[in-house]
Amino acid sequence: MQNIDVHTHVVPENFPAYVGTGKDVPWPSMAPAHACHAHVVIKGKNYRTVNQSCWHVDDRLRDMERQTVGVQCLSPMPELLSYWLPAKDAQVLLRYVNDTIASMVARHPKRFRGLGAVPLQDMDLAIRELEYIMDTLKFDGVELASHIDGTTLGDPRFEPFFAAAERMNAAIFVHALRPAGRDRLAGPVSEQVVCFPGEIGLAVASMITGGIAERHPKLRIAFSHGGGVAPMLMGRLDRAWTTNAKLKEALPERPSAYSKRFYYDSIVFTPASLNYILNVFGESQVLIGSDYPFVGAGDPDPVAFLRSCGLDDRVLEGVLSGNAARFLGI
Amino acid sequence: MQNIDVHTHVVPENFPAYVGTGKDVPWPSMAPAHACHAHVVIKGKNYRTVNQSCWHVDDRLRDMERQTVGVQCLSPMPELLSYWLPAKDAQVLLRYVNDTIASMVARHPKRFRGLGAVPLQDMDLAIRELEYIMDTLKFDGVELASHIDGTTLGDPRFEPFFAAAERMNAAIFVHALRPAGRDRLAGPVSEQVVCFPGEIGLAVASMITGGIAERHPKLRIAFSHGGGVAPMLMGRLDRAWTTNAKLKEALPERPSAYSKRFYYDSIVFTPASLNYILNVFGESQVLIGSDYPFVGAGDPDPVAFLRSCGLDDRVLEGVLSGNAARFLGI
Repeated sequence: MQNIDVHTHVVPENFPAYVGTGKDVPWPSMAPAHACHAHVVIKGKNYRTVNQSCWHVDDRLRDMERQTVGVQCLSPMPELLSYWLPAKDAQVLLRYVNDTIASMVARHPKRFRGLGAVPLQDMDLAIRELEYIMDTLKFDGVELASHIDGTTLGDPRFEPFFAAAERMNAAIFVHALRPAGRDRLAGPVSEQVVCFPGEIGLAVASMITGGIAERHPKLRIAFSHGGGVAPMLMGRLDRAWTTNAKLKEALPERPSAYSKRFYYDSIVFTPASLNYILNVFGESQVLIGSDYPFVGAGDPDPVAFLRSCGLDDRVLEGVLSGNAARFLGI
Repeated sequence: MQNIDVHTHVVPENFPAYVGTGKDVPWPSMAPAHACHAHVVIKGKNYRTVNQSCWHVDDRLRDMERQTVGVQCLSPMPELLSYWLPAKDAQVLLRYVNDTIASMVARHPKRFRGLGAVPLQDMDLAIRELEYIMDTLKFDGVELASHIDGTTLGDPRFEPFFAAAERMNAAIFVHALRPAGRDRLAGPVSEQVVCFPGEIGLAVASMITGGIAERHPKLRIAFSHGGGVAPMLMGRLDRAWTTNAKLKEALPERPSAYSKRFYYDSIVFTPASLNYILNVFGESQVLIGSDYPFVGAGDPDPVAFLRSCGLDDRVLEGVLSGNAARFLGI
């Protein structure tokens, strides 16, 4: 079986012009940069300068060859998820992004798989876009952010979406975005590096303590960045479950039991951390992530990293391919 | 050598009346509750109902007997740290709290040691209070929160305080408080349980990336809750150090090297997590924490927990006593 990287991102080469009626809508556009690069411009500012690998299929294939990654799941650069746009504007933008991903998948359907985006600030539009993604584009599922414009993912208001995803058999990849604590940085370091692990852990916890995992046992959910702080939270949550009657009443199983239903990518950078998450969540629940093509906080060589972790052959094979295949429903 | 618990809290049995000139200052008071308990009332609301063990020395000694803890470090309940009060009001309140701790230590100086509090919203007052704590009360050091009313602990503005602490040989115990992400909870669970690990990890990172650890190599600092997300951050920070020239320029050593100078308490609840932090930070850097007498998010039996972690005798002895003695400068 081929190695499957579930955590790679796409930025379209261009965006359509904004045709909505909103004022000061942070609609993205692309501007030329140095060779092989472009600026993603939002509200007149350069949000990020990106490599053409974001949209260039042949560049990706060349890098995948080097990484011995057989299949990439393509999901939007998280800042494109657009939960803070007027919902109808977000729907237009995300439809364009989803179609862009679909066109990349169509060029090499054995090497790329799609994870789309939905405007979750509007439940009806989000479920309609999920139907389009699953029925028309035939993607494996969607990418969601760790919170929807400030509301944590496990909030009861998102229940209908998760019910729909479970019904449609959609895989859900949750990515940290606009993280908690980004007002707590010191020195020359980015919020992605320092705050993403805490942020994604908050999303994991909320999906458990809010009851989504309990009520939707067939949902297949993967979290970015190894779940971040989530493995350190499980002992605390299990302890709280024994001392807090309301939590125990809400959850028939202890919180850590739900965490073992979720998947977690391998972007943790050290063998000690990788082995720790395998220990906490189970050998069947960890899968390749790279954050390709972003290198600032990503793993440029995820298979080599996993091969350096001292895993036995059976576990390694699961992490490289089998666990992702199960997560994606292949 | 006796087992030393560095993470236990004090609430005074009573507070003096507010005599300052501020308006709506959140000055605490105590109100009767059910037997052996009192409410800590702040702004007319019950902040927390606490057990008399918060101030009752004999109760503590009885519990320490049961836990086989020989020595407790007494530090204020973190919400008392008062960084959000007018600085002069905070100085009055913290002086009272420090003197209360001193009187508890004085009753059983072989069983209790003091960690005081300083009004770090005012640098001069904070350093003056640190002098009082170290020179007059003869405490081992101070407790600080993970951020000072929203400014992360590693911010350059706190440099003079850390320089003073290094000069006075004061141990610093950093505790999570008013954590990042407390707007991201779902279901019946507290911010202490879910958000403290991410919060304390942000403080660890800021003390490294802001350069405090580099510039003050003799500082002895311990972090609560096993450092929270910090062990998961070190691989990311080391990776960032290789890709971000400004970070490499700011730090001669890789970020994880600084993390191994810090101490971390043992409130992680699972042997897998305890062994993981020993692996990441070193066997000499982990010490007993319990959060006594708070049981909602604390470890009611920290020595028994540590004895269940499969540590070899030499490592266990360090975690139970030797590492804390080094941290405290005993």
